[in-house]
Amino acid sequence: MARAALILGGARSGKSRRGEEMALSCGLAPVHIATAEARDDEMRERIARHKARRRGRGWREVEAPLDLAGAIRAEAAADRILLVDCLTLWLANTMLAGRDAGAEAAALRRAIGDAPGRIVLVSSEVGLGIVPENALARRFRDLAGELHRDLAREAETVLFMVAGLPLAVKAPPPARPPD
Amino acid sequence: MARAALILGGARSGKSRRGEEMALSCGLAPVHIATAEARDDEMRERIARHKARRRGRGWREVEAPLDLAGAIRAEAAADRILLVDCLTLWLANTMLAGRDAGAEAAALRRAIGDAPGRIVLVSSEVGLGIVPENALARRFRDLAGELHRDLAREAETVLFMVAGLPLAVKAPPPARPPD
Amino acid sequence: MARAALILGGARSGKSRRGEEMALSCGLAPVHIATAEARDDEMRERIARHKARRRGRGWREVEAPLDLAGAIRAEAAADRILLVDCLTLWLANTMLAGRDAGAEAAALRRAIGDAPGRIVLVSSEVGLGIVPENALARRFRDLAGELHRDLAREAETVLFMVAGLPLAVKAPPPARPPD
Repeated sequence: MARAALILGGARSGKSRRGEEMALSCGLAPVHIATAEARDDEMRERIARHKARRRGRGWREVEAPLDLAGAIRAEAAADRILLVDCLTLWLANTMLAGRDAGAEAAALRRAIGDAPGRIVLVSSEVGLGIVPENALARRFRDLAGELHRDLAREAETVLFMVAGLPLAVKAPPPARPPD
Repeated sequence: MARAALILGGARSGKSRRGEEMALSCGLAPVHIATAEARDDEMRERIARHKARRRGRGWREVEAPLDLAGAIRAEAAADRILLVDCLTLWLANTMLAGRDAGAEAAALRRAIGDAPGRIVLVSSEVGLGIVPENALARRFRDLAGELHRDLAREAETVLFMVAGLPLAVKAPPPARPPD
Repeated sequence: MARAALILGGARSGKSRRGEEMALSCGLAPVHIATAEARDDEMRERIARHKARRRGRGWREVEAPLDLAGAIRAEAAADRILLVDCLTLWLANTMLAGRDAGAEAAALRRAIGDAPGRIVLVSSEVGLGIVPENALARRFRDLAGELHRDLAREAETVLFMVAGLPLAVKAPPPARPPD
Protein backbone atom coordinates (compact mmCIF):
# COMPACT_ATOMS: atom_id res chain seq x y z
CA MET A 1 0.00 0.00 0.00
CA ALA A 2 1.01 3.56 -0.63
CA ARG A 3 2.07 5.27 2.57
CA ALA A 4 -1.33 6.68 3.45
CA ALA A 5 -2.67 9.33 5.79
CA LEU A 6 -6.36 9.59 6.71
CA ILE A 7 -7.63 13.01 7.84
CA LEU A 8 -11.03 12.95 9.53
CA GLY A 9 -13.01 15.79 11.05
CA GLY A 10 -16.28 17.67 11.10
CA ALA A 11 -17.58 20.52 8.96
CA ARG A 12 -15.03 23.33 8.51
CA SER A 13 -12.55 21.65 10.80
CA GLY A 14 -9.57 22.35 8.54
CA LYS A 15 -9.31 18.89 6.94
CA SER A 16 -8.69 20.10 3.38
CA ARG A 17 -6.14 22.68 4.41
CA ARG A 18 -4.26 20.15 6.50
CA GLY A 19 -4.29 17.68 3.63
CA GLU A 20 -2.89 20.31 1.25
CA GLU A 21 -0.11 21.21 3.69
CA MET A 22 0.83 17.54 4.13
CA ALA A 23 0.93 17.03 0.37
CA LEU A 24 3.00 20.16 -0.31
CA SER A 25 5.51 19.51 2.45
CA CYS A 26 6.55 15.97 1.53
CA GLY A 27 8.61 16.78 -1.54
CA LEU A 28 6.65 14.67 -4.05
CA ALA A 29 4.61 16.05 -6.97
CA PRO A 30 1.12 16.86 -5.65
CA VAL A 31 -2.03 15.66 -7.43
CA HIS A 32 -5.42 16.88 -6.22
CA ILE A 33 -8.27 14.44 -6.83
CA ALA A 34 -11.57 16.22 -6.20
CA THR A 35 -14.75 14.20 -5.70
CA ALA A 36 -17.13 17.18 -5.41
CA GLU A 37 -19.64 17.91 -8.12
CA ALA A 38 -20.71 21.52 -8.50
CA ARG A 39 -24.44 20.81 -8.23
CA ASP A 40 -25.45 24.13 -6.68
CA ASP A 41 -24.07 27.60 -5.98
CA GLU A 42 -23.00 26.71 -2.43
CA MET A 43 -20.81 23.92 -3.81
CA ARG A 44 -19.57 25.86 -6.83
CA GLU A 45 -18.41 28.71 -4.62
CA ARG A 46 -16.66 26.32 -2.22
CA ILE A 47 -14.84 24.43 -5.00
CA ALA A 48 -13.68 27.72 -6.55
CA ARG A 49 -12.35 28.97 -3.20
CA HIS A 50 -10.36 25.80 -2.59
CA LYS A 51 -9.01 25.80 -6.15
CA ALA A 52 -7.85 29.41 -5.82
CA ARG A 53 -5.92 28.40 -2.71
CA ARG A 54 -4.03 25.71 -4.64
CA ARG A 55 -3.35 27.79 -7.78
CA GLY A 56 0.29 28.37 -8.69
CA ARG A 57 1.65 25.86 -6.20
CA GLY A 58 2.34 23.01 -8.62
CA TRP A 59 -0.85 20.99 -8.22
CA ARG A 60 -2.12 18.72 -10.93
CA GLU A 61 -5.95 18.84 -10.75
CA VAL A 62 -8.14 15.77 -11.38
CA GLU A 63 -11.90 15.33 -10.93
CA ALA A 64 -13.35 11.97 -9.93
CA PRO A 65 -16.87 12.24 -8.55
CA LEU A 66 -17.57 8.54 -9.20
CA ASP A 67 -14.60 6.59 -10.59
CA LEU A 68 -12.25 7.35 -7.74
CA ALA A 69 -10.55 3.93 -7.84
CA GLY A 70 -9.81 4.47 -11.54
CA ALA A 71 -8.40 7.94 -10.93
CA ILE A 72 -6.11 6.65 -8.19
CA ARG A 73 -4.86 3.83 -10.45
CA ALA A 74 -4.26 6.31 -13.29
CA GLU A 75 -2.54 9.00 -11.22
CA ALA A 76 -0.52 7.18 -8.57
CA ALA A 77 3.25 7.06 -9.12
CA ALA A 78 6.30 6.60 -6.94
CA ASP A 79 7.23 10.29 -7.23
CA ARG A 80 3.73 11.61 -6.57
CA ILE A 81 1.50 12.28 -3.60
CA LEU A 82 -2.25 12.12 -4.22
CA LEU A 83 -4.68 14.16 -2.13
CA VAL A 84 -8.21 12.73 -2.32
CA ASP A 85 -10.78 15.29 -1.07
CA CYS A 86 -13.08 13.87 0.06
CA LEU A 87 -14.26 10.31 0.61
CA THR A 88 -17.70 11.03 2.06
CA LEU A 89 -18.64 13.15 -0.96
CA TRP A 90 -17.53 10.30 -3.20
CA LEU A 91 -19.60 7.86 -1.13
CA ALA A 92 -22.66 10.13 -1.39
CA ASN A 93 -22.16 10.44 -5.19
CA THR A 94 -21.87 6.65 -5.43
CA MET A 95 -25.09 6.05 -3.49
CA LEU A 96 -26.99 8.76 -5.38
CA ALA A 97 -25.89 7.17 -8.67
CA GLY A 98 -27.50 3.91 -7.53
CA ARG A 99 -24.21 2.02 -7.49
CA ASP A 100 -23.36 -0.79 -5.04
CA ALA A 101 -21.51 1.27 -2.45
CA GLY A 102 -20.09 -1.75 -0.62
CA ALA A 103 -18.52 -3.15 -3.80
CA GLU A 104 -17.26 0.29 -4.83
CA ALA A 105 -15.67 0.81 -1.41
CA ALA A 106 -13.89 -2.54 -1.72
CA ALA A 107 -12.59 -1.55 -5.19
CA LEU A 108 -11.42 1.78 -3.78
CA ARG A 109 -9.52 0.08 -0.98
CA ARG A 110 -7.81 -2.21 -3.49
CA ALA A 111 -6.77 0.75 -5.63
CA ILE A 112 -5.32 2.49 -2.58
CA GLY A 113 -3.60 -0.71 -1.55
CA ASP A 114 -1.98 -1.14 -4.96
CA ALA A 115 -0.90 2.48 -5.39
CA PRO A 116 2.80 3.39 -5.39
CA GLY A 117 3.91 6.69 -3.88
CA ARG A 118 1.92 8.43 -1.16
CA ILE A 119 -1.74 9.28 -0.63
CA VAL A 120 -3.64 11.58 1.70
CA LEU A 121 -7.32 10.79 2.19
CA VAL A 122 -9.65 13.51 3.52
CA SER A 123 -13.06 12.52 4.83
CA SER A 124 -15.87 13.87 7.01
CA GLU A 125 -16.70 12.23 10.31
CA VAL A 126 -20.51 12.08 10.21
CA GLY A 127 -21.35 9.47 12.85
CA LEU A 128 -21.31 11.50 16.07
CA GLY A 129 -24.80 12.99 16.00
CA ILE A 130 -28.26 11.57 16.71
CA VAL A 131 -29.14 8.46 14.63
CA PRO A 132 -30.81 9.88 11.49
CA GLU A 133 -34.49 9.02 10.94
CA ASN A 134 -33.84 8.68 7.21
CA ALA A 135 -32.81 5.09 6.32
CA LEU A 136 -30.56 6.26 3.47
CA ALA A 137 -28.73 8.65 5.80
CA ARG A 138 -28.29 5.81 8.31
CA ARG A 139 -26.87 3.58 5.60
CA PHE A 140 -24.57 6.40 4.46
CA ARG A 141 -23.12 6.98 7.90
CA ASP A 142 -22.68 3.25 8.49
CA LEU A 143 -20.81 2.85 5.20
CA ALA A 144 -18.70 5.92 5.93
CA GLY A 145 -17.82 4.57 9.38
CA GLU A 146 -16.85 1.19 7.96
CA LEU A 147 -14.76 2.75 5.20
CA HIS A 148 -12.90 4.95 7.71
CA ARG A 149 -12.27 1.96 9.97
CA ASP A 150 -10.94 -0.16 7.12
CA LEU A 151 -8.68 2.59 5.78
CA ALA A 152 -7.43 3.60 9.24
CA ARG A 153 -6.26 0.04 9.85
CA GLU A 154 -3.89 0.28 6.87
CA ALA A 155 -2.95 3.95 7.12
CA GLU A 156 0.32 5.11 8.60
CA THR A 157 -1.18 8.33 10.00
CA VAL A 158 -4.73 9.07 11.17
CA LEU A 159 -5.69 12.58 12.28
CA PHE A 160 -8.92 13.79 13.86
CA MET A 161 -9.24 17.53 13.22
CA VAL A 162 -10.79 19.74 15.89
CA ALA A 163 -11.14 23.46 15.15
CA GLY A 164 -8.34 23.34 12.58
CA LEU A 165 -5.96 21.48 14.87
CA PRO A 166 -4.97 17.81 14.60
CA LEU A 167 -5.45 15.16 17.28
CA ALA A 168 -3.14 12.29 16.36
CA VAL A 169 -5.17 9.08 16.43
CA LYS A 170 -2.41 7.05 14.79
CA ALA A 171 1.11 8.32 14.36
CA PRO A 172 3.80 6.94 12.05
CA PRO A 173 6.62 5.10 13.78
CA PRO A 174 9.58 7.39 14.55
CA ALA A 175 12.10 7.57 11.73
CA ARG A 176 14.94 5.09 12.12
CA PRO A 177 18.18 6.96 12.84
CA PRO A 178 20.81 6.57 10.12
CA ASP A 179 23.40 3.91 10.90
CA MET B 1 -17.18 0.07 42.07
CA ALA B 2 -16.13 -2.58 39.61
CA ARG B 3 -13.05 -1.53 37.68
CA ALA B 4 -14.87 0.00 34.75
CA ALA B 5 -13.99 1.08 31.24
CA LEU B 6 -16.22 3.36 29.15
CA ILE B 7 -15.88 3.12 25.37
CA LEU B 8 -17.48 5.98 23.46
CA GLY B 9 -17.56 6.66 19.75
CA GLY B 10 -19.71 7.30 16.71
CA ALA B 11 -21.48 4.95 14.32
CA ARG B 12 -19.29 2.06 13.17
CA SER B 13 -16.27 3.41 15.00
CA GLY B 14 -15.20 0.01 16.35
CA LYS B 15 -16.63 0.38 19.87
CA SER B 16 -18.09 -3.15 20.14
CA ARG B 17 -15.02 -4.82 18.75
CA ARG B 18 -12.75 -2.91 21.11
CA GLY B 19 -14.98 -3.84 24.04
CA GLU B 20 -14.86 -7.51 23.07
CA GLU B 21 -11.08 -7.43 22.81
CA MET B 22 -10.76 -5.77 26.22
CA ALA B 23 -13.05 -8.36 27.78
CA LEU B 24 -11.29 -11.35 26.20
CA SER B 25 -7.79 -10.15 27.03
CA CYS B 26 -8.20 -9.60 30.77
CA GLY B 27 -8.33 -13.22 31.87
CA LEU B 28 -11.77 -13.13 33.54
CA ALA B 29 -14.85 -15.02 32.33
CA PRO B 30 -16.60 -12.79 29.75
CA VAL B 31 -20.33 -12.07 29.91
CA HIS B 32 -21.98 -10.18 27.07
CA ILE B 33 -25.01 -8.12 28.07
CA ALA B 34 -26.84 -6.99 24.95
CA THR B 35 -29.38 -4.16 25.14
CA ALA B 36 -30.47 -4.29 21.49
CA GLU B 37 -33.93 -5.47 20.56
CA ALA B 38 -34.31 -7.02 17.12
CA ARG B 39 -37.17 -4.75 16.06
CA ASP B 40 -36.39 -4.76 12.33
CA ASP B 41 -34.25 -6.55 9.75
CA GLU B 42 -31.43 -3.99 9.96
CA MET B 43 -31.12 -4.68 13.69
CA ARG B 44 -31.63 -8.45 13.44
CA GLU B 45 -28.85 -8.73 10.88
CA ARG B 46 -26.49 -6.59 12.98
CA ILE B 47 -27.13 -8.59 16.17
CA ALA B 48 -26.57 -11.88 14.31
CA ARG B 49 -23.28 -10.62 12.86
CA HIS B 50 -21.95 -9.55 16.25
CA LYS B 51 -23.08 -12.82 17.87
CA ALA B 52 -21.30 -14.86 15.20
CA ARG B 53 -18.11 -12.97 15.98
CA ARG B 54 -18.32 -13.97 19.65
CA ARG B 55 -19.30 -17.62 19.08
CA GLY B 56 -16.93 -20.28 20.42
CA ARG B 57 -14.84 -17.84 22.44
CA GLY B 58 -16.31 -18.57 25.87
CA TRP B 59 -18.91 -15.79 26.09
CA ARG B 60 -21.97 -16.09 28.28
CA GLU B 61 -24.78 -14.24 26.46
CA VAL B 62 -27.43 -12.20 28.30
CA GLU B 63 -30.14 -9.90 26.95
CA ALA B 64 -31.27 -6.87 28.89
CA PRO B 65 -33.11 -4.35 26.73
CA LEU B 66 -34.71 -2.69 29.78
CA ASP B 67 -33.65 -4.17 33.13
CA LEU B 68 -29.95 -3.52 32.67
CA ALA B 69 -29.34 -2.72 36.35
CA GLY B 70 -30.93 -6.07 37.29
CA ALA B 71 -28.83 -7.96 34.75
CA ILE B 72 -25.63 -6.37 36.06
CA ARG B 73 -26.55 -7.26 39.65
CA ALA B 74 -27.36 -10.84 38.61
CA GLU B 75 -24.27 -11.40 36.47
CA ALA B 76 -21.43 -9.50 38.13
CA ALA B 77 -18.89 -11.61 40.01
CA ALA B 78 -15.28 -11.20 41.10
CA ASP B 79 -14.06 -13.64 38.43
CA ARG B 80 -16.12 -12.15 35.62
CA ILE B 81 -15.92 -9.24 33.21
CA LEU B 82 -19.22 -7.88 31.92
CA LEU B 83 -19.45 -6.18 28.53
CA VAL B 84 -22.55 -3.98 28.26
CA ASP B 85 -23.29 -3.11 24.62
CA CYS B 86 -24.66 -0.53 24.51
CA LEU B 87 -25.90 2.16 26.88
CA THR B 88 -27.53 4.51 24.35
CA LEU B 89 -29.70 1.67 23.00
CA TRP B 90 -30.73 0.87 26.57
CA LEU B 91 -31.52 4.56 27.15
CA ALA B 92 -33.63 4.69 23.97
CA ASN B 93 -35.49 1.50 25.01
CA THR B 94 -36.12 3.01 28.45
CA MET B 95 -37.53 6.24 27.01
CA LEU B 96 -39.65 4.41 24.41
CA ALA B 97 -41.10 2.24 27.19
CA GLY B 98 -42.24 5.41 28.95
CA ARG B 99 -40.05 4.83 32.00
CA ASP B 100 -38.42 7.60 34.05
CA ALA B 101 -35.03 7.67 32.34
CA GLY B 102 -33.38 9.83 35.01
CA ALA B 103 -34.36 7.42 37.80
CA GLU B 104 -33.38 4.39 35.71
CA ALA B 105 -29.98 5.93 34.97
CA ALA B 106 -29.41 6.49 38.68
CA ALA B 107 -30.33 2.84 39.39
CA LEU B 108 -27.94 1.73 36.66
CA ARG B 109 -25.09 3.73 38.13
CA ARG B 110 -25.73 2.19 41.56
CA ALA B 111 -25.70 -1.32 40.06
CA ILE B 112 -22.39 -0.57 38.33
CA GLY B 113 -21.02 0.94 41.52
CA ASP B 114 -21.94 -2.15 43.57
CA ALA B 115 -20.68 -4.72 41.06
CA PRO B 116 -17.65 -6.86 41.88
CA GLY B 117 -15.25 -7.88 39.11
CA ARG B 118 -14.83 -5.76 35.99
CA ILE B 119 -17.17 -4.09 33.55
CA VAL B 120 -16.80 -2.59 30.08
CA LEU B 121 -19.49 -0.11 29.01
CA VAL B 122 -19.97 0.62 25.31
CA SER B 123 -22.01 3.67 24.30
CA SER B 124 -22.58 5.93 21.31
CA GLU B 125 -21.53 9.55 21.39
CA VAL B 126 -24.57 11.33 19.92
CA GLY B 127 -24.09 14.95 21.01
CA LEU B 128 -21.72 16.34 18.37
CA GLY B 129 -24.19 17.20 15.62
CA ILE B 130 -26.67 20.02 15.14
CA VAL B 131 -29.20 20.40 17.99
CA PRO B 132 -32.14 18.16 16.96
CA GLU B 133 -35.47 19.89 16.28
CA ASN B 134 -37.31 16.98 17.88
CA ALA B 135 -37.72 17.58 21.66
CA LEU B 136 -37.51 13.85 22.46
CA ALA B 137 -34.23 13.56 20.54
CA ARG B 138 -32.88 16.58 22.44
CA ARG B 139 -33.87 14.99 25.75
CA PHE B 140 -32.25 11.72 24.65
CA ARG B 141 -28.92 13.31 23.79
CA ASP B 142 -28.92 15.35 27.00
CA LEU B 143 -29.55 12.24 29.10
CA ALA B 144 -26.91 10.29 27.17
CA GLY B 145 -24.39 13.08 27.71
CA GLU B 146 -25.12 13.23 31.44
CA LEU B 147 -24.90 9.45 31.79
CA HIS B 148 -21.53 9.39 30.00
CA ARG B 149 -20.23 12.21 32.19
CA ASP B 150 -21.35 10.51 35.39
CA LEU B 151 -19.90 7.13 34.39
CA ALA B 152 -16.65 8.62 33.08
CA ARG B 153 -16.04 10.25 36.46
CA GLU B 154 -15.97 6.82 38.14
CA ALA B 155 -14.41 4.79 35.33
CA GLU B 156 -10.77 3.80 35.34
CA THR B 157 -10.47 3.99 31.54
CA VAL B 158 -12.37 6.15 29.03
CA LEU B 159 -11.76 5.72 25.30
CA PHE B 160 -13.08 7.80 22.41
CA MET B 161 -13.02 5.66 19.28
CA VAL B 162 -12.17 7.29 15.93
CA ALA B 163 -12.21 5.09 12.81
CA GLY B 164 -11.64 1.95 14.87
CA LEU B 165 -8.75 3.44 16.83
CA PRO B 166 -8.83 4.58 20.46
CA LEU B 167 -8.06 8.04 21.77
CA ALA B 168 -7.38 7.68 25.48
CA VAL B 169 -9.49 10.25 27.32
CA LYS B 170 -8.75 8.74 30.73
CA ALA B 171 -6.05 6.16 31.30
CA PRO B 172 -5.66 3.86 34.29
CA PRO B 173 -2.78 4.70 36.62
CA PRO B 174 0.39 2.76 35.78
CA ALA B 175 0.55 -0.64 37.47
CA ARG B 176 2.41 -0.57 40.79
CA PRO B 177 5.65 -2.54 40.48
CA PRO B 178 5.71 -5.66 42.67
CA ASP B 179 7.56 -5.18 45.97
CA MET C 1 -4.90 39.18 22.48
CA ALA C 2 -6.03 38.15 25.92
CA ARG C 3 -4.63 34.79 26.90
CA ALA C 4 -7.53 32.73 25.64
CA ALA C 5 -8.80 29.19 26.11
CA LEU C 6 -11.37 27.60 23.79
CA ILE C 7 -13.44 24.74 25.23
CA LEU C 8 -15.31 22.69 22.63
CA GLY C 9 -17.50 19.64 23.08
CA GLY C 10 -20.88 18.07 22.49
CA ALA C 11 -24.13 18.28 24.41
CA ARG C 12 -23.69 17.79 28.16
CA SER C 13 -19.99 17.10 27.78
CA GLY C 14 -18.99 19.25 30.76
CA LYS C 15 -17.87 22.35 28.82
CA SER C 16 -19.49 24.92 31.13
CA ARG C 17 -18.29 23.26 34.29
CA ARG C 18 -14.74 23.04 32.96
CA GLY C 19 -14.85 26.69 31.95
CA GLU C 20 -16.03 27.71 35.41
CA GLU C 21 -13.26 25.71 37.06
CA MET C 22 -10.63 27.27 34.80
CA ALA C 23 -11.94 30.76 35.57
CA LEU C 24 -12.09 30.20 39.33
CA SER C 25 -8.66 28.61 39.58
CA CYS C 26 -6.62 31.32 37.86
CA GLY C 27 -6.71 33.95 40.59
CA LEU C 28 -8.34 36.75 38.55
CA ALA C 29 -11.82 38.19 39.20
CA PRO C 30 -14.30 36.00 37.27
CA VAL C 31 -16.95 37.53 34.99
CA HIS C 32 -19.61 35.27 33.48
CA ILE C 33 -20.94 36.44 30.12
CA ALA C 34 -24.05 34.43 29.25
CA THR C 35 -25.36 34.39 25.69
CA ALA C 36 -28.44 32.25 26.37
CA GLU C 37 -31.89 33.75 26.17
CA ALA C 38 -34.57 32.12 28.30
CA ARG C 39 -37.00 31.56 25.45
CA ASP C 40 -38.67 28.42 26.84
CA ASP C 41 -38.91 26.38 30.06
CA GLU C 42 -36.12 23.99 29.01
CA MET C 43 -33.73 26.94 28.67
CA ARG C 44 -34.99 28.82 31.73
CA GLU C 45 -34.46 25.77 33.91
CA ARG C 46 -30.96 25.21 32.52
CA ILE C 47 -29.88 28.82 33.02
CA ALA C 48 -31.20 28.78 36.59
CA ARG C 49 -29.31 25.57 37.38
CA HIS C 50 -26.01 26.95 36.06
CA LYS C 51 -26.52 30.25 37.92
CA ALA C 52 -27.17 28.42 41.17
CA ARG C 53 -23.87 26.61 40.72
CA ARG C 54 -21.99 29.91 40.44
CA ARG C 55 -23.77 31.70 43.31
CA GLY C 56 -21.61 32.89 46.20
CA ARG C 57 -18.32 32.23 44.43
CA GLY C 58 -17.50 35.80 43.44
CA TRP C 59 -18.86 35.84 39.89
CA ARG C 60 -19.96 39.02 38.22
CA GLU C 61 -22.90 38.09 35.92
CA VAL C 62 -23.43 39.71 32.51
CA GLU C 63 -25.92 38.86 29.76
CA ALA C 64 -25.06 39.36 26.10
CA PRO C 65 -27.31 37.39 23.76
CA LEU C 66 -26.39 39.59 20.78
CA ASP C 67 -23.81 42.28 21.54
CA LEU C 68 -21.12 39.92 22.73
CA ALA C 69 -18.26 41.98 21.26
CA GLY C 70 -19.54 45.01 23.17
CA ALA C 71 -19.81 43.07 26.41
CA ILE C 72 -16.25 41.78 26.06
CA ARG C 73 -14.95 45.31 25.40
CA ALA C 74 -16.87 46.65 28.40
CA GLU C 75 -15.89 43.89 30.85
CA ALA C 76 -12.34 42.89 29.96
CA ALA C 77 -9.63 44.11 32.33
CA ALA C 78 -6.10 43.04 33.23
CA ASP C 79 -7.24 41.67 36.60
CA ARG C 80 -10.26 39.83 35.25
CA ILE C 81 -11.02 36.54 33.54
CA LEU C 82 -14.10 36.47 31.32
CA LEU C 83 -16.02 33.24 30.75
CA VAL C 84 -18.17 33.43 27.60
CA ASP C 85 -20.79 30.65 27.56
CA CYS C 86 -21.43 29.95 24.78
CA LEU C 87 -20.43 30.99 21.27
CA THR C 88 -22.80 28.73 19.30
CA LEU C 89 -25.82 30.12 21.17
CA TRP C 90 -24.60 33.64 20.39
CA LEU C 91 -24.18 32.66 16.73
CA ALA C 92 -27.71 31.22 16.62
CA ASN C 93 -29.10 34.39 18.24
CA THR C 94 -27.22 36.49 15.68
CA MET C 95 -28.59 34.53 12.73
CA LEU C 96 -32.14 34.47 14.13
CA ALA C 97 -31.98 38.26 14.55
CA GLY C 98 -31.20 38.56 10.85
CA ARG C 99 -27.76 40.07 11.43
CA ASP C 100 -24.75 39.51 9.18
CA ALA C 101 -23.15 36.63 11.08
CA GLY C 102 -19.85 36.79 9.19
CA ALA C 103 -19.36 40.48 10.03
CA GLU C 104 -20.45 39.93 13.62
CA ALA C 105 -17.99 37.04 13.98
CA ALA C 106 -15.18 39.28 12.69
CA ALA C 107 -16.14 41.99 15.20
CA LEU C 108 -16.19 39.40 17.97
CA ARG C 109 -12.71 38.19 17.06
CA ARG C 110 -11.41 41.77 17.12
CA ALA C 111 -12.93 42.34 20.57
CA ILE C 112 -11.29 39.15 21.87
CA GLY C 113 -8.02 40.14 20.25
CA ASP C 114 -8.07 43.58 21.89
CA ALA C 115 -9.10 42.39 25.35
CA PRO C 116 -6.65 42.63 28.25
CA GLY C 117 -6.66 39.95 30.95
CA ARG C 118 -7.84 36.43 30.24
CA ILE C 119 -10.83 34.88 28.49
CA VAL C 120 -12.36 31.42 28.36
CA LEU C 121 -14.63 30.70 25.39
CA VAL C 122 -17.11 27.82 25.61
CA SER C 123 -18.72 26.54 22.42
CA SER C 124 -20.56 23.51 21.10
CA GLU C 125 -19.02 21.32 18.43
CA VAL C 126 -21.93 20.77 16.02
CA GLY C 127 -20.22 19.61 12.82
CA LEU C 128 -19.75 15.87 13.40
CA GLY C 129 -23.16 14.55 12.39
CA ILE C 130 -24.86 14.00 9.06
CA VAL C 131 -24.99 17.12 6.82
CA PRO C 132 -28.30 18.81 7.75
CA GLU C 133 -30.97 19.01 5.03
CA ASN C 134 -31.94 22.47 6.26
CA ALA C 135 -29.85 25.18 4.50
CA LEU C 136 -29.91 27.46 7.55
CA ALA C 137 -28.60 24.65 9.75
CA ARG C 138 -25.84 23.98 7.20
CA ARG C 139 -24.88 27.65 7.21
CA PHE C 140 -24.93 27.68 11.01
CA ARG C 141 -22.57 24.72 11.34
CA ASP C 142 -20.25 26.10 8.67
CA LEU C 143 -20.03 29.46 10.46
CA ALA C 144 -19.53 27.73 13.81
CA GLY C 145 -16.73 25.60 12.35
CA GLU C 146 -15.00 28.64 10.84
CA LEU C 147 -15.32 30.62 14.07
CA HIS C 148 -13.83 27.77 16.09
CA ARG C 149 -10.98 27.40 13.63
CA ASP C 150 -10.19 31.13 13.69
CA LEU C 151 -10.31 31.34 17.47
CA ALA C 152 -8.33 28.12 17.97
CA ARG C 153 -5.49 29.55 15.88
CA GLU C 154 -5.05 32.43 18.36
CA ALA C 155 -5.93 30.61 21.57
CA GLU C 156 -3.30 29.40 23.99
CA THR C 157 -5.35 26.37 25.05
CA VAL C 158 -7.94 24.34 23.11
CA LEU C 159 -9.83 21.51 24.81
CA PHE C 160 -12.21 18.97 23.29
CA MET C 161 -14.46 17.65 26.04
CA VAL C 162 -15.54 13.99 25.97
CA ALA C 163 -17.87 12.76 28.72
CA GLY C 164 -16.78 15.54 31.06
CA LEU C 165 -13.07 14.93 30.49
CA PRO C 166 -10.71 17.11 28.44
CA LEU C 167 -8.69 16.03 25.44
CA ALA C 168 -5.97 18.64 24.98
CA VAL C 169 -6.00 19.75 21.33
CA LYS C 170 -3.64 22.66 21.98
CA ALA C 171 -1.70 23.07 25.20
CA PRO C 172 -0.01 26.21 26.50
CA PRO C 173 3.79 26.15 26.44
CA PRO C 174 5.28 24.92 29.73
CA ALA C 175 5.79 27.69 32.29
CA ARG C 176 9.29 29.19 32.23
CA PRO C 177 11.07 28.30 35.46
CA PRO C 178 11.93 31.33 37.61
CA ASP C 179 15.49 32.53 37.19
